Amino acid sequence: VKGEFEFIAGLRARVAADAHADLIAGIGDDAAILRPSANSELLITTDLLVEEIHFDLSYTSPAQLGHKALAVNLSDIAAMGGRPRYFLLGFACPRPLAEGFLDNMIDAMMSLAREHGVALIGGDTCTARRSLFINITLIGECAPGKSVRRNTARPGDSIYITGALGGSALGLDLLRSGIRFSQEGERDEKTAALSAHLLPQPRVELGAAIGERGLATAMIDISDGLSSDLNHICDESGVGAEVDAEAIRIASGASLKQALNGGEDYELLFTVSPDRVAEIETLRTDFPNIEISKIGSITTSQERWLISEGKRYSLIPRGYDHFA
Amino acid sequence: VKGEFEFIAGLRARVAADAHADLIAGIGDDAAILRPSANSELLITTDLLVEEIHFDLSYTSPAQLGHKALAVNLSDIAAMGGRPRYFLLGFACPRPLAEGFLDNMIDAMMSLAREHGVALIGGDTCTARRSLFINITLIGECAPGKSVRRNTARPGDSIYITGALGGSALGLDLLRSGIRFSQEGERDEKTAALSAHLLPQPRVELGAAIGERGLATAMIDISDGLSSDLNHICDESGVGAEVDAEAIRIASGASLKQALNGGEDYELLFTVSPDRVAEIETLRTDFPNIEISKIGSITTSQERWLISEGKRYSLIPRGYDHFA
Repeated sequence: VKGEFEFIAGLRARVAADAHADLIAGIGDDAAILRPSANSELLITTDLLVEEIHFDLSYTSPAQLGHKALAVNLSDIAAMGGRPRYFLLGFACPRPLAEGFLDNMIDAMMSLAREHGVALIGGDTCTARRSLFINITLIGECAPGKSVRRNTARPGDSIYITGALGGSALGLDLLRSGIRFSQEGERDEKTAALSAHLLPQPRVELGAAIGERGLATAMIDISDGLSSDLNHICDESGVGAEVDAEAIRIASGASLKQALNGGEDYELLFTVSPDRVAEIETLRTDFPNIEISKIGSITTSQERWLISEGKRYSLIPRGYDHFA
Repeated sequence: VKGEFEFIAGLRARVAADAHADLIAGIGDDAAILRPSANSELLITTDLLVEEIHFDLSYTSPAQLGHKALAVNLSDIAAMGGRPRYFLLGFACPRPLAEGFLDNMIDAMMSLAREHGVALIGGDTCTARRSLFINITLIGECAPGKSVRRNTARPGDSIYITGALGGSALGLDLLRSGIRFSQEGERDEKTAALSAHLLPQPRVELGAAIGERGLATAMIDISDGLSSDLNHICDESGVGAEVDAEAIRIASGASLKQALNGGEDYELLFTVSPDRVAEIETLRTDFPNIEISKIGSITTSQERWLISEGKRYSLIPRGYDHFA
């Protein structure tokens, strides 16, 4: 493991080529300097990943960890309808880490960053006595007024999700039962679930497109789980929801419970007003590889219902009650 | 200890009143939303504090920890000549923490934030298995072109420091030897040193004034220690320096070694071109409570010298060599 200054110098050399026009100074001073474009809004999010809480190094490779630490932040900016631009990386790592650990972690992080045009502009690093901590702060951008909030869903809106849910929770269960991920393996249902958990693919382009088109009334990413994240939208917007259990696309091999409550799928959940729902077809055409499913509607009543086989269940964060 | 959502809701309620005109949304969505003023540059810094590395809870109170976590970031923005505006707080804490720990930590942090007009706009919180970990990302602002870099010192510039150095290192030594801080205690040399270490006062207003007046050619805060931080300026600027050991104001009770290498004083180190040095008097008049001392000059040669009692020593990061 290199010294802190040597490590930072190495990072700095490799990110110099990533500079953006509005970045005046990145790594190497007391702070990074940005001159934001005159006609833009900035979106700023921060996420922590803590060893033994968010990840377990017995089944997470350094590259998977580096990927996921940035991916979860990219997902937050996507959920605001913005485009990610810059990030700062703080990490504290216990010594000794395996040879090459940090390089592999950073390589994967920088590879995902490059894929989405995101530049590393600063950070902080130090040793830790026991656990590995990673903190990323990500700055995104959108046109003024184009960010998509949680608190603006309206009764009558349709509710959509991207992709399939529950895969990450299934993957975590498999990992905990001892099954391991191999990138060379057969692309079966288990591999897909392991990949969903270890290498989530945030909906960066789709989120930005929804924001730029002004297509959604509200949006959030599914990090806590559909039941919790839909409740965030309902709480913030002062509305209710009815969700059709049969319309939720469930990852192959996963259960409805995992799809509702598992979390960490990093798909998008968004609401669309009746006069715009026809444009979902255009969105599907423009993003042919991403399933977009209508799963229900926003209601005036503040109640949240899950409807399954004609029966109504009260949908609560991380679960549902047999109620009516 | 409260649940995460309850804790965030509590924070959100208390920071609502701190909103700034260019803050569109703070805590409560996937990301905060800012609309920066058209004619400004943003300064962004991030700093980690890790238990057992940066602080020891056996002698650091929750309030001191909260204060210091924000203070070290404020110092970075001051060193850029900017004004701090917004911060994001990430922390992971092991349970059980003492009753009131988090409230006391946040209270002190918010009190320092209010003092400097800084608003909390987002964050992330989770449990940790073993160590407490705090990450703050702070966003500051300055007029275009007014940020003060490390890489712009020029031969012939005078070198200045604020305050006295070494107090924080002395304070840490005292704490490690079992001496404890009491705010009611006599204001003696030991209390001052303990306070320098546990409750550093970043030079927020002075740093912003230096930036706004365009007074310094280069600036850095003294976090690693004078010997290291002056070397950062010299390395980045491609210049050398001569420092007069007798001109360094040393905290009462501290040694020259602590002043040079101790670090964590969070004073400012800055360079001023010959045609502007007369303005230091005005700065002293405007900030009568802060000592501003000229300690040496920037030189063309890349060598760094410490001159003491007529002898020249090679000044190296975290030390000096008996050389000539």
